[in-house]
Amino acid sequence: MDALTQLSVTDVQITSTFWQRYRNIIAKEAVPFQWDMINDKGKMDVTNADAAGGAADHSGAIENLKIAAGRAKGHHFGFVFQDTDVYKWLETVSYVLKYHFDQKMKDAADWTIDLIADAQDKNGYLSTYFQIDAPKRKFKRLQQSHELYSMGHYIEAGVAYYESTGSQKALEIAEKMAGCINSNFGPEDGKIHGYDGHPEIELALAKLYETTKNRTYLNLAKYFITERGQDLKFFDRQNEADGIDNDFFAELRTIGDRYYFADKPITEQKDAHGHAVRVLYFCTGLAHVARIEHDKKLLKAADTIWDDIVKKQLYVTGNVGQTVTGEAFTYDYDLPNDTDYGETCASVSMAFFTKQMLANKLAGKFGDVIEKEIFNGALSGIALDGKHYFYANPLEADPVASKLNPGKKHIALRRSSWFACACCPANITRLIASLDQYLYEIHDNTILSHQFIANDAKFSDGIEIHQQGNFPWDGNISYQISNPNRSKFSFGIRIPAWSLDKFILKVNDKVVNTKLNDDILYVPIDKSVTSISLVLNMAARLVRANTNVNADIGKVAIQRGPIVYCAEGVDNSQPLWRYILGEAPSFKYTYEPQLLDGVGTLTTDDAYCLEGDPEEALYTFDKPKGAQKAHLTLIPYYAWANRDEKQMTVWIRQNGI
Amino acid sequence: MDALTQLSVTDVQITSTFWQRYRNIIAKEAVPFQWDMINDKGKMDVTNADAAGGAADHSGAIENLKIAAGRAKGHHFGFVFQDTDVYKWLETVSYVLKYHFDQKMKDAADWTIDLIADAQDKNGYLSTYFQIDAPKRKFKRLQQSHELYSMGHYIEAGVAYYESTGSQKALEIAEKMAGCINSNFGPEDGKIHGYDGHPEIELALAKLYETTKNRTYLNLAKYFITERGQDLKFFDRQNEADGIDNDFFAELRTIGDRYYFADKPITEQKDAHGHAVRVLYFCTGLAHVARIEHDKKLLKAADTIWDDIVKKQLYVTGNVGQTVTGEAFTYDYDLPNDTDYGETCASVSMAFFTKQMLANKLAGKFGDVIEKEIFNGALSGIALDGKHYFYANPLEADPVASKLNPGKKHIALRRSSWFACACCPANITRLIASLDQYLYEIHDNTILSHQFIANDAKFSDGIEIHQQGNFPWDGNISYQISNPNRSKFSFGIRIPAWSLDKFILKVNDKVVNTKLNDDILYVPIDKSVTSISLVLNMAARLVRANTNVNADIGKVAIQRGPIVYCAEGVDNSQPLWRYILGEAPSFKYTYEPQLLDGVGTLTTDDAYCLEGDPEEALYTFDKPKGAQKAHLTLIPYYAWANRDEKQMTVWIRQNGI
Repeated sequence: MDALTQLSVTDVQITSTFWQRYRNIIAKEAVPFQWDMINDKGKMDVTNADAAGGAADHSGAIENLKIAAGRAKGHHFGFVFQDTDVYKWLETVSYVLKYHFDQKMKDAADWTIDLIADAQDKNGYLSTYFQIDAPKRKFKRLQQSHELYSMGHYIEAGVAYYESTGSQKALEIAEKMAGCINSNFGPEDGKIHGYDGHPEIELALAKLYETTKNRTYLNLAKYFITERGQDLKFFDRQNEADGIDNDFFAELRTIGDRYYFADKPITEQKDAHGHAVRVLYFCTGLAHVARIEHDKKLLKAADTIWDDIVKKQLYVTGNVGQTVTGEAFTYDYDLPNDTDYGETCASVSMAFFTKQMLANKLAGKFGDVIEKEIFNGALSGIALDGKHYFYANPLEADPVASKLNPGKKHIALRRSSWFACACCPANITRLIASLDQYLYEIHDNTILSHQFIANDAKFSDGIEIHQQGNFPWDGNISYQISNPNRSKFSFGIRIPAWSLDKFILKVNDKVVNTKLNDDILYVPIDKSVTSISLVLNMAARLVRANTNVNADIGKVAIQRGPIVYCAEGVDNSQPLWRYILGEAPSFKYTYEPQLLDGVGTLTTDDAYCLEGDPEEALYTFDKPKGAQKAHLTLIPYYAWANRDEKQMTVWIRQNGI
Repeated sequence: MDALTQLSVTDVQITSTFWQRYRNIIAKEAVPFQWDMINDKGKMDVTNADAAGGAADHSGAIENLKIAAGRAKGHHFGFVFQDTDVYKWLETVSYVLKYHFDQKMKDAADWTIDLIADAQDKNGYLSTYFQIDAPKRKFKRLQQSHELYSMGHYIEAGVAYYESTGSQKALEIAEKMAGCINSNFGPEDGKIHGYDGHPEIELALAKLYETTKNRTYLNLAKYFITERGQDLKFFDRQNEADGIDNDFFAELRTIGDRYYFADKPITEQKDAHGHAVRVLYFCTGLAHVARIEHDKKLLKAADTIWDDIVKKQLYVTGNVGQTVTGEAFTYDYDLPNDTDYGETCASVSMAFFTKQMLANKLAGKFGDVIEKEIFNGALSGIALDGKHYFYANPLEADPVASKLNPGKKHIALRRSSWFACACCPANITRLIASLDQYLYEIHDNTILSHQFIANDAKFSDGIEIHQQGNFPWDGNISYQISNPNRSKFSFGIRIPAWSLDKFILKVNDKVVNTKLNDDILYVPIDKSVTSISLVLNMAARLVRANTNVNADIGKVAIQRGPIVYCAEGVDNSQPLWRYILGEAPSFKYTYEPQLLDGVGTLTTDDAYCLEGDPEEALYTFDKPKGAQKAHLTLIPYYAWANRDEKQMTVWIRQNGI
């Protein structure tokens, strides 16, 4: 047999040293730690939690489910969406069990599934706040209730657990939920014509459809996607009927439809605005449903929003959502570094959205953004120990500013172990635990390798691909291809934007010049091809922002491979803003195995540091005093704030026009 | 007679073209307009008021007094300190009548004095909110009640009106108030041992003492100054007794003592923190009482706070108070330009404070700061028409940012005619109307001319000084001295910081080299001296901030004479941040009589403008595209936002180390 009928991936095992460390920490540290947190065991270190996310003395998440299940008595504790902390933990576990099986962990997950099943209403409804304390208000205040958001997170977890362990029970709970939602929402008479204030159900139903192939779920997902923003009075009418002041979040009643990304139908939206995670969860479902349905209008809508973010609202680290007020996008080219929010959840969901966009169309730009998130913006959300998390991820931080300027109060200089609103911890762990799903994309008879994360992958027809390399520190990537059935297929390799100017591809050890197609090299594979190697440009590069960006003007960021670097006060003299890079600075790269669990640092002597003088006047008409030649040390952005609390900056001044 | 026993100023008439325009507008436009506002007549243009200050549909300030006086019925309207809008209007009128007598205006003021007298309780108490709606809560919740603040503002007005018109009735009301406060507050048993949440009474009682020489008022002022911050439970105890939730401003109950500048006794304070106007009103009274009492500890305390502000927390324009949150100081060297508050009231009160510091010690630095405020930071608070006012005065503004980034919502791009909290309008008008009090300072046998504002001044012993010149546009200053009694005295002239490197002094047309003493030239005056002339350096100067200031690094401000300039989008291409000044730019100065009611502009061709390309990526590894030679036009900062709503910036990038 020479041609494939249906190419598919069957197994991916990550072998990358860099990612094995993180994934082992998720398995051995984060999952047990988060389990303790949601079970109200162990100590919360919430020292910096009140900066963003808020501090709490316990979680109550499992306890709420016990109360709903009749196994305990009491009132609901925490936010109306507290259940989701359990579900995202369960989803993380689902992925972990595939690369680090642990019977105790599986037992805990099975016990949790049983608990969730017991807590679920007969008709499939599950949202413990409403079951315990407000049974008459179910689906009555969707602007703020997060009920579909909560159930959507369970559906994701249930599907993941079923896919990982074959647990029918986990899937049944999800299908019962979807059934409940379907019988309550939709265009038909007698159903609620509306949608949740916080998207999530859309992407969850699309996943449930992929697993079950039940079109009901797909139709319902599409309904929520197309209904959003159609009826601008929906929330108001519900609030009125539910008792106008009877809010779960008083400030969310009058915040306006833009916050909910519900100010107009998605096909009329031109940019990302409002609460960043709401936008990105919604667009993840949008891009997914659009693909399955071959809906060109929805595909175009997804493209429009993705383009706006990536071309005009994305931090160089991949962080998104510029303002703490409403945890929201602001406007095109507004990218302040010292007040930005860049919520961990937003970076994680930008990776979700972009994964769906890549599935829609093979193009290097999508792989670039996924890479940006997983090595920078999203990864910054978790400490090296796996047990502390950032809510906000600024690109410039100063402990004094966070303490004494209220406009920067949300900028924590230290990750917190937990939060009152603990959305971020399990969001970053479920991303890292599922990273094996982010390496290959298959279109027809093409396998695209879009991330340089060493792995052993198996595909249909016995195809095996072994990617090796010490990325992100080393740019030598090799693929061994085993193709026992002599299948013919095309193997695509993304050339990252940072290496487009310089790379070497060898097929069977011979240099090959292949034309790029949307920044992807396609190598036709036949029986003769057994190895491919790629050498990427690992020079430290200066990154400049578009001159429409006020915050970055006259500054550069430094990137080597996929890693965006930053300067920390731990390694450099403070204040960091006194540094200026030379016109064409050369950087020395050193891998330091003992530093920050092993990082590559960049240092340069092509830098200057302005002189300071504490006795000097605040303003002077004098010429500048000049600067001293200085040594500047940079570390990867993802690893910042793992040592002493000092200043940090990604963007550094450079002279030049 | 050859020696003076007691030198004093008897009359100052401002003849400066620049200031006559403003002072005429105050007399002919602002005073009648504000009268309409507080009488709920005429139209409020509050389009931009909600940015800071808040919008209201009417004032109710006079109506409240009518109700308290029994001339009308109803409830109090507005803030608990609404009365002060009337008092500051009355104070403005007091000063205006001295340079622009208008019988109708005086009739309105006399009518208002009668109304206030009728509204005043027999025991001297006056605060209409409490009289009308909460008579049992008088002096019961001083943290928030503003009662002493309100009466303090009347006392200032009453003293001013008495000084201007001789109205005994105006003074009697003030003395009755002070008597009421004295019988309720003080160290004696049975009195309240505490102070107002908002300082003002301290400076008012010091003024009342100066006029009446009644030491009771001075002692009471000193009591409030030294008591502040002694008993950190005072506010809490009062709130508890008054009913803990019974707030006038709920957020002010738990905001903390730092906000009130009451976290420790003044002699232990090391820096300015908390609500800027509270700090500055307090320090105005502090410096005044310290001088009268020759209290070295209090003098040192005043010095410490003034130094902290001027050396570490003052914008180059003179604006103070870096954050909208609590309208407050933040911390040393934290001077963000695009989020700063710089409340008009704070700049005005920084002038008040500094005037008292100059009275304590003749030094050029104090005159420099007064000049900075009156020509820049404070003056920016009022539109050229005299009838629109800024609450916040940023150093960088962008209409899109103010609209779409919530962190900049407080930055209005257009002055508003009135505010719910209308503190700023009459604060800036009373400063401009009393500017004649800011020109001379007399110490022993020295007359110091510290401002270059043309005027005709009369002193004791028949001395007359006529200062002429077209400042701030022209640096040629001349003094004609008439000294009919051949008095011997010393005439001091401040040499401004911006001219210390270059100036020419001539006495009777002969160049004189005199040593500077604290940046002041002292010319001994005897019968021979009839004219003094000074030529100041009116070159456009580049101003650089201390390298401890993150926000201004790599940037310069441009100042010519006392005027700080800015670039506006009306005159230059946007975005303004694309401009870079050359290494040693030369500026062309042009006085443009038709522009902005007559301003000197600065233009340069020694500038570059970075190129933009809307289709360009957000980030690039490419070298910068370069910049075009560009023409840059600057206007005085005080005159910004009088044309179209466009971007504005004071600080402009410049290459260099």
